Amino acid sequence: MSETDLDTAPREKPLRDEQLRDITPPSPPEAPHDEDDRLSPEFVDAVLDHVDAGEIDAARALVAPLHPADIADLFELTPADRRRQLASALAEMLDADVFAELNDWVREELMEALGPAEVAELATQLDTDDAVAIIEDMEEEDQRAVLRAMEPDDRAAIEEALSYPEESAGRLMQRDLIAVPEHWSVGDVLDYLRRNEDLTTDFWEVFVVDHGHHPVGTCKLSWILRSPRNVAIADVMQREQSLIPVDMDQEEVALRFQKYALISAAVVDPNNRLVGMITVDDVVHIIQEEAGEDALRLSGAGDGDINEPILLTVRGRLIWLVVNLGTAMIAASVVGLFRDEIAKFALLAALMGIVSGMGGNAGTQTLAVVVRALATNQLTSSNTFRMIYREFRIAAANGSVLGLLIGTGSYLLYGNPLLSAVFGLAILINNLIAGSAGVMVPLTLERMRVDPAVSSAVFVTMMTDTLGFFTFLGLAAAVGLTG
Amino acid sequence: MSETDLDTAPREKPLRDEQLRDITPPSPPEAPHDEDDRLSPEFVDAVLDHVDAGEIDAARALVAPLHPADIADLFELTPADRRRQLASALAEMLDADVFAELNDWVREELMEALGPAEVAELATQLDTDDAVAIIEDMEEEDQRAVLRAMEPDDRAAIEEALSYPEESAGRLMQRDLIAVPEHWSVGDVLDYLRRNEDLTTDFWEVFVVDHGHHPVGTCKLSWILRSPRNVAIADVMQREQSLIPVDMDQEEVALRFQKYALISAAVVDPNNRLVGMITVDDVVHIIQEEAGEDALRLSGAGDGDINEPILLTVRGRLIWLVVNLGTAMIAASVVGLFRDEIAKFALLAALMGIVSGMGGNAGTQTLAVVVRALATNQLTSSNTFRMIYREFRIAAANGSVLGLLIGTGSYLLYGNPLLSAVFGLAILINNLIAGSAGVMVPLTLERMRVDPAVSSAVFVTMMTDTLGFFTFLGLAAAVGLTG
Repeated sequence: MSETDLDTAPREKPLRDEQLRDITPPSPPEAPHDEDDRLSPEFVDAVLDHVDAGEIDAARALVAPLHPADIADLFELTPADRRRQLASALAEMLDADVFAELNDWVREELMEALGPAEVAELATQLDTDDAVAIIEDMEEEDQRAVLRAMEPDDRAAIEEALSYPEESAGRLMQRDLIAVPEHWSVGDVLDYLRRNEDLTTDFWEVFVVDHGHHPVGTCKLSWILRSPRNVAIADVMQREQSLIPVDMDQEEVALRFQKYALISAAVVDPNNRLVGMITVDDVVHIIQEEAGEDALRLSGAGDGDINEPILLTVRGRLIWLVVNLGTAMIAASVVGLFRDEIAKFALLAALMGIVSGMGGNAGTQTLAVVVRALATNQLTSSNTFRMIYREFRIAAANGSVLGLLIGTGSYLLYGNPLLSAVFGLAILINNLIAGSAGVMVPLTLERMRVDPAVSSAVFVTMMTDTLGFFTFLGLAAAVGLTG
Repeated sequence: MSETDLDTAPREKPLRDEQLRDITPPSPPEAPHDEDDRLSPEFVDAVLDHVDAGEIDAARALVAPLHPADIADLFELTPADRRRQLASALAEMLDADVFAELNDWVREELMEALGPAEVAELATQLDTDDAVAIIEDMEEEDQRAVLRAMEPDDRAAIEEALSYPEESAGRLMQRDLIAVPEHWSVGDVLDYLRRNEDLTTDFWEVFVVDHGHHPVGTCKLSWILRSPRNVAIADVMQREQSLIPVDMDQEEVALRFQKYALISAAVVDPNNRLVGMITVDDVVHIIQEEAGEDALRLSGAGDGDINEPILLTVRGRLIWLVVNLGTAMIAASVVGLFRDEIAKFALLAALMGIVSGMGGNAGTQTLAVVVRALATNQLTSSNTFRMIYREFRIAAANGSVLGLLIGTGSYLLYGNPLLSAVFGLAILINNLIAGSAGVMVPLTLERMRVDPAVSSAVFVTMMTDTLGFFTFLGLAAAVGLTG
């Protein structure tokens, strides 16, 4: 601890060990964070240099005051081929909380070095949801070995969580929660919390249940703290509550947390019995992921995880590029139909790319808006027609302006009125095609229960390219355009 | 209340009025939610039909059991030209909490009908952060009128908040929080909370401050509840804490909440004095917005807010399309350089779009990954070089596979080995260009403090289009390719 600020050294208090770690970084001399709250390259290098030099104690002294999320960062920022070496130097600090914070790929890499007993030991120290997150990604055989090495209670909890669908509330929830009977007073609740040392300390609300363990209300801790002991808990609790079905998709869970500004919520089984709790800190990650991944999916970049093994990334992106190659070939074959016109008037070849490109851009704009509105539940059956009409008007307005602009500009440049009329008209038509495709394709895919973020772009671009070329070159051929 | 489920009717309890509203929707006969937690079109229509028929009481009875977030939804899902009518029918339910949940554009529209005194009244009922959110978007003159109509205390709080930069922690924080001196015991804190009726009930942690009002620790309510009365609060609190500077950008605030799984955090002024508190529910919206808006910005679709007045949307998108028109013209002029080659061998015109298109797709993939990694602080100075190298290898791998595939395919199709060599090589080169541009452009813009999500795409596409055409047609000209 020699080099760290005194203020960040752990002090005695009646809490779990990991709660003692500092959250704010120690101040200089060796401030490990850059302005973005990430570890600075100098800090990462300093740790790695100590490890290289065999100065394990010095490396540990640097890392000891860090929050688990920062220790996880340290591993992510370390080049892949040096992570194992770092892990063995810092073995004692690489605890369950750090594992829970690690990027999936980096975690998997480090866990390969551990035996099932060690993984089981790590998992046992975690909340159910974090333990499940670690175990669910393992190969089935490894998973069984780890489960076999766990205590029966922990094992049962994990196995139950794994029995729920991936990305469902059941995987996300933790089982440690505070549930009290509805006939208790505030004083009863306070005594219960003070006298039972093995209860969780990670809770923000108390769930009130009836004799059948059905949730009947939720009580913020601040309400309990502000009420006299003799008041009935049933009079303090909020009776109406947002119950999350155990099989609800995590994206819906996240949207519900966001809509109703929830801090925690009760998870119920199909018989409406309380089986777990989801807290907002677990949901925050999902909101971030789900909102961000649409941009990546629209571009066919998969998860966009920069820690993913490179071969998987290459394969994922290549599949998408090959699909796009198919659509590019269809567009090229349309151009091929008009080879004679192009040979006679090569300027058409230079200009056709403007028609398809402007359509592609307009289509992508509409697509991004529609996919986003679908993902955030802003686009519902109540306003679908309004959205289509809105996008059509935008396409008509933008298409007219661009068509006039391009028609006029090309007339000034080439002095060919027929060419300019064909050019401007093709721009307008392709904008309308783009607007219609940009809104109809994702809506149709959503209705067919295909993720519109993944597959919309390829259809929309195919339409704007193919029909853009066809409109422009077809009009040119129809009017017998020549230079 | 006649048509609603009995279970959702408000009951007596010692809480604020708005906390009484139900969060779970009433069950049938008239269940207002669809599977996405949004109001069903049938419900919206039912309310609007009652309003049209002048059956105001029936409309109110339907809406009364709704959560403020759902009442806000109702207004958003109502066609724009009927919102005012709905607002006057439901005037008494259109309270401050509903306004806080409304989409910015819809809120502005409804507020135009209100006078400054009414807006001031609404703002007074809200937490500072929500009041600021309502007032900050108003025209300066209206803002002044509203502030003048407020009580001096509320006015001072709002004016102070407005003095901080937009999208900073100072705008986001609320001033109502619980701060206690460090020498108090747990019992003192409990007594203080119980005896002061006008304290806020919206808090999850208690901040411990020294005599100069500097935060020295944070204490989760669950720790207070689980500790005996005679324990010193200083022994229960977490001494190390994440203090948010009042001028921190909201995006950084959100990332910090996410990284350290915070529920609330103290906001401090430059002298490190406690001035406010940010809670996770306010941050959740920001995480969602910031993560989602990159997809929209990359496509030039602005905010993508489906409630934005259509003329603003048209203008925003048109600017982007005109910028893209400029780059498309540059690309077209490159094609124009090779008009003679195209006139001699029109197939080149059909195939050149495949070269530029494949490059564009690959560039967009890289771009989406890099922009996302920058936005989530995953890409830092520690791993920039690794990222560039990684993207270069991906581009080389994908370019080689696609080049070989396209070279072989085109040879089978056209039997022209020289054409196929040129075609395949151009594909490989353009993939390398795309990979380099996709990673270097956003990194350069970020370093120049320009938002890479807004402006990267246009540069990357310009490079893949222009250089793609140039490589393919230039190689073809250089080897004297003919059909």
